[in-house]
This record gives sequence, structure tokens and C-alpha cells, in this order.
Amino acid sequence: MNKPYIAPVKDDLLEIAQKRLDSLTKPQGSLGRLEEFAKKLVLLTGQAMPQPFPKKAIFTFAGDHGVVDEGVSLFPKEVTIQMVYNFLKGGAGINVLARHAGADEIVVDIGVDYDFGEEKDLLVRKVVKGTKNMRKGPAMTRQEAEHCIEIGLELALNYAKKGYGIFGTGEMGIGNTTPSSAIAAVLTGTAVSKVTGRGTGITDETLQHKISVIEDSISLNKPDPKDPIDVLSKVGGAEIGGIAGLILGAASQKIPVVIDGFISTAGALIAYSIEPAVKDYMFAAHRSVEIGQQVMLEVMGLRPILDLEMRLGEGTGAALGIFIIEAGLKVYREMATFDEAGVSKELT
Amino acid sequence: MNKPYIAPVKDDLLEIAQKRLDSLTKPQGSLGRLEEFAKKLVLLTGQAMPQPFPKKAIFTFAGDHGVVDEGVSLFPKEVTIQMVYNFLKGGAGINVLARHAGADEIVVDIGVDYDFGEEKDLLVRKVVKGTKNMRKGPAMTRQEAEHCIEIGLELALNYAKKGYGIFGTGEMGIGNTTPSSAIAAVLTGTAVSKVTGRGTGITDETLQHKISVIEDSISLNKPDPKDPIDVLSKVGGAEIGGIAGLILGAASQKIPVVIDGFISTAGALIAYSIEPAVKDYMFAAHRSVEIGQQVMLEVMGLRPILDLEMRLGEGTGAALGIFIIEAGLKVYREMATFDEAGVSKELT
Repeated sequence: MNKPYIAPVKDDLLEIAQKRLDSLTKPQGSLGRLEEFAKKLVLLTGQAMPQPFPKKAIFTFAGDHGVVDEGVSLFPKEVTIQMVYNFLKGGAGINVLARHAGADEIVVDIGVDYDFGEEKDLLVRKVVKGTKNMRKGPAMTRQEAEHCIEIGLELALNYAKKGYGIFGTGEMGIGNTTPSSAIAAVLTGTAVSKVTGRGTGITDETLQHKISVIEDSISLNKPDPKDPIDVLSKVGGAEIGGIAGLILGAASQKIPVVIDGFISTAGALIAYSIEPAVKDYMFAAHRSVEIGQQVMLEVMGLRPILDLEMRLGEGTGAALGIFIIEAGLKVYREMATFDEAGVSKELT
Repeated sequence: MNKPYIAPVKDDLLEIAQKRLDSLTKPQGSLGRLEEFAKKLVLLTGQAMPQPFPKKAIFTFAGDHGVVDEGVSLFPKEVTIQMVYNFLKGGAGINVLARHAGADEIVVDIGVDYDFGEEKDLLVRKVVKGTKNMRKGPAMTRQEAEHCIEIGLELALNYAKKGYGIFGTGEMGIGNTTPSSAIAAVLTGTAVSKVTGRGTGITDETLQHKISVIEDSISLNKPDPKDPIDVLSKVGGAEIGGIAGLILGAASQKIPVVIDGFISTAGALIAYSIEPAVKDYMFAAHRSVEIGQQVMLEVMGLRPILDLEMRLGEGTGAALGIFIIEAGLKVYREMATFDEAGVSKELT
């Protein structure tokens, strides 16, 4: 796999950005985190006055998971296929929220265990027909894992060329909180029980079973915490690899990328472990209900924007996050300065 | 003052709303607070399928405060006037964020110490030319306070007739965190020091002085905590009264109203103290940096939607809150059900 060049973000525009924010008609700092987002956009784009987002895209990567055979999920595996059709018809949560945020919803089959054939609006980039059951061996080969990352990377480059100015990540894959918890445990060195939650809503008993399945999978496959691609291939998933690639590609193009919830954060942690410089291009959309997310965000030094107790995935949190980040950009671009508006400054 | 009739919200549609939410293609409850907002909209409108918001409005009430003479603010009093012009020209934070949320920004002069004359897009509903200095006597007469509430009420009825489906509150008034803290202290029975913050960003020394000014004003005027109009007139402000009236009017029309930050919350607490049934029509947009807000929200049982460390006022938090509430409504209205999409339900 060819790792793209990702420029470390430089601080040289920070003073200009802060000066601009402090010249706007509001008490200094009074727009709180909106100002933080504006500054981050200045630094990551390298533009003192970043352009409006001409187009926005949320990528929902779909993939299946062999580990579902172990009974770790509340929903049957076919739901991945059914939900892909739901995305294509515009009836899923992500369709509604992407429309609301003015973002295009891009559905990518990267690993569903089904042949969709020709479907308008479905990008077929299938690497595997579902991963293998990681409790019995590696989920994917190293080559497959690399291929998943390359798919995401290529999409980021294509959509950058098409003029998109911000990306959101999303996913669909019955069972995919299980590999996400495995990735969180291995890459952060945390006990599996501390990073494993209820996914779609399993019982206490199933949760205990899920933890055992993840522990068994890690013991059997011995993923190397220093080798994120090894981790992705042995205990990961195709959609998680696609997300990691999308993030690497976005960062290489200086495009902000908004990380959805728990599974997307696992993809982000893979990308970060490959190249820590991606951190400055990422925004964490929201705090997921899944307990493993926070541990990963802390490793990357990301703080969620929203906390709405969501746990749907698909990119739903990213859609709302994009709206808030865009609010920060618009404030920075569109507000009048004290001079322009003829407003008096603070008493000194 | 004629108090409008506000129907207590009934729970009879709750089961229908929950059933609808649970029929949508997502794990039960996985859209978290978006589902809470959708249910609240069903109950407050009394419609099993609430209509989309045809138009949205944020009302920014502007007023001046005699207590500014005591040196409680970082900005000179003229800034209220200058900011009204900034609103009218579209350059303020609220203009940017209202546009972003697709809401109309309505500027109301309810108590500015200045004659604007004829200004396109300015609603002149002046009750006072600034309040009087409450450290020396009542801020307003009882009649003036009632008149402010009536102005807000009348605006709510007018904009309901014009077809607006949701309102946001906002304000501009140099010095107005001071009366807001006074209202919070009196109506919640909390020490002034526990509900007084830095407003636009005053120093430790000025904060101590501000607390003394508020304590003095309460000692002198002896507002009756059981009589919210007495409190509003003695230690309140015109824009706070306008907000209280807008909330009462919105509730009387079964229109949701989104409360901005600290000053708006003081207006909300006045409305709530007049008629507790307004609670079910209100949404708290965001947690303000001002410490007094939380105390008031707790009394009313409202939980903020966002926490972006904002403290600008004007209605800026309300604009962002409206977007999130609308997301909940769209999810409820637009998502496909399991049956419609042919998606399998949970394993049982």
C-alpha cells in the first residue's frame, strides 16, 4: 500500500485566524467551539479565509462480518443487504439527516456478502463478500485489508476532484461493533470489557458472550498493536478499512473529514495509527453511546461536538456534525467586523 | 394583563409516537435525543404526524438597561444601538446562524434608549427608552412590564397566523446579564453569587462589583418571588419581558419555542412562573457559559440540546437548536418503516 503524503498542519495562520475572530462583532471567544472549528478549518486548509463548502458528502461503507455467526448481534445478517437498499431508496436515517445537512449520501459496497448487480447510486467496490469469522482465524488477508484502505483513499481523491469541500464517514454492517471493540482494545491497550458495548441493544448475557468472542479472537489471531494493517486484517472489517482510507485521502487533499460514531472512530484510529498527522484534519461529530469510542477519541486528542445519545451509525452523527462545523465556517466568513459595522469595542 | 389560555400537554399520543419511532428502520432508541424531540413535538402540537416547519423565526428583542451606569458591563451602552443596525444589515452572529438554519431573523426594538425612526425590517414596539437603574429604584413600572409581555405575546400570535411553525428567542442589550442574574436569584431562591457570571467577559473585580449591584437592587426593590411580573418590573428588562410574552404566546398557539441562552432562560423562567404549562412547549437550545442558566433550567426541568461553550446571545444558540429539533422531526416524518423498506426486525 502506498501511504499518501499528509502535510503536518502548521500553526502559522493561527494568529491571523484569531485576529479575524476577535475583529468580529461579538465579545471575544463568545461563540465558543464554533470559533475553535473555524480556526481548525483555517489551519487544515492552509487558507486564511477558507472557502465555503461547495458540496458535502457522507460516505456510508457497507460490509458484512463472519463473526455474526457467533451470535453477537441483535439483528440478522441480511439486514446489511436490506439496509443498503433502504439507503438507495432514501428511507434510512442517514438519508434524512444528510438531506437535512445539505450533504450527498454516497453508498459504497466494500464488503457485503451479496451481489447487488447494477444499482443506480451504489458504488460497488467490493473487496470481500463479508469478512471471515475472526474467532476462527483472521477476518481478512493483509492484502484485502490494504485494498479496503485503498478504496477509501481513491474515493477521497475522486470526490476532492469533483469539488467536495467536506466529507463525513459512515457505515452499515450487522455485527460491526464487535470488530470495532477489538480494534479499540488492541490499539489502545485497553481491556476488551472496557471498550465493548451493547451495539444495537443486546442483553447483559449476550454482552458477556460478545466480550468473550472478542477476547478469543484477539488471543487466536495475535494482532500486532504496532501494525494497524495487521490489526485491521485480523480483527477488523472491510467498511472500517474503507473509512480509514477515506480519512487518509481527505487529509492528503487538505479536506476536513467528520468522524461519525463508534465504528467510524475505530476506522479513524486505524488511519491515525498509520499516520498521526491525520488528527488535524478530523472532527469527532458526536459522543456515541458505545463506551469504546471515548477511549479511542482520547488517544487521538479529539473531543466530540455533539452529545445526543445516538448510536445508529450510518453517518447520522456526521451529518449533524457537518452542520455545526459549517456554522463555524460561516461565522468566520460572513460576520461583520467591528469596523465594518461601526460597533464600539470593549471598554479598556 | 390577560393571560392567554395554554392547554396542558396531554400524553395520549405518546404511545402512537413511540410506536412510529420503533417502526422506523433503526435499532430502537438509537437516535437518542432526536427521538425525544420528535415525541415532544407530537405531544405539544397534538398531532400524531406533526407538519414540517413551513417557516421558522428567531426573535431578537433589543433593550437597554439603566443599571449599566453602575459599570457592570465590558461594553458601552451605545453598542445596543449599533448592534441593532448590525442585525438590520445582516452582519451579526445571529444573522449568519439564522440564515444557516433557514430561519427568518426578526429584530424588535422593545426598549432601546434611542429613536431609530423608520427602518426597514425593524419592528418598533418600544415600551421604554431603556429601563431605569435598578440599584436606585424599580427598573420599570408594573404596567410597563406587563406591556413588554403583551408585545411578545402579540408577536407570537401574528407570526403564528403568518404560518411560522417554530420560534426561537434571542436578545440584545448591553448589561442584560445583570437583570437576568437578579431574576434567577429571586425566582429560584439562589444566592446572587451562584447565578452571576462574567457576561461579555468582565474581570474578577468587576464580577464582585456586579454581584454587589444585584444584591443591592434586590434589597432595595424587594421583588416578590411569588409575583413574576413584580420581579420583571423591579429587577428585569424590557427584552426579557418580550421573550416571556413570546413564549406564552407560542404555547397558546401550540408552537414550539426554542430558548437561547442565559437571558432567554430568564425570560423563560418569568413565563414559566406565570404559567408552568409553557414548559412542555419549550426546548432549551444550549448550555450557556453563564452559571445562572443551569439553575433556572433545572427548576423548569429542561435539558439543553447543545453544549458548545457559547455565550453570545442574540438567539445564536436557538438557531443551532432549531436545526437539531428539525432533524428529529424529519427523522420521525421521513424515515422508512421496517415494513416499507422490507428490513428484518430484531431477532427474538
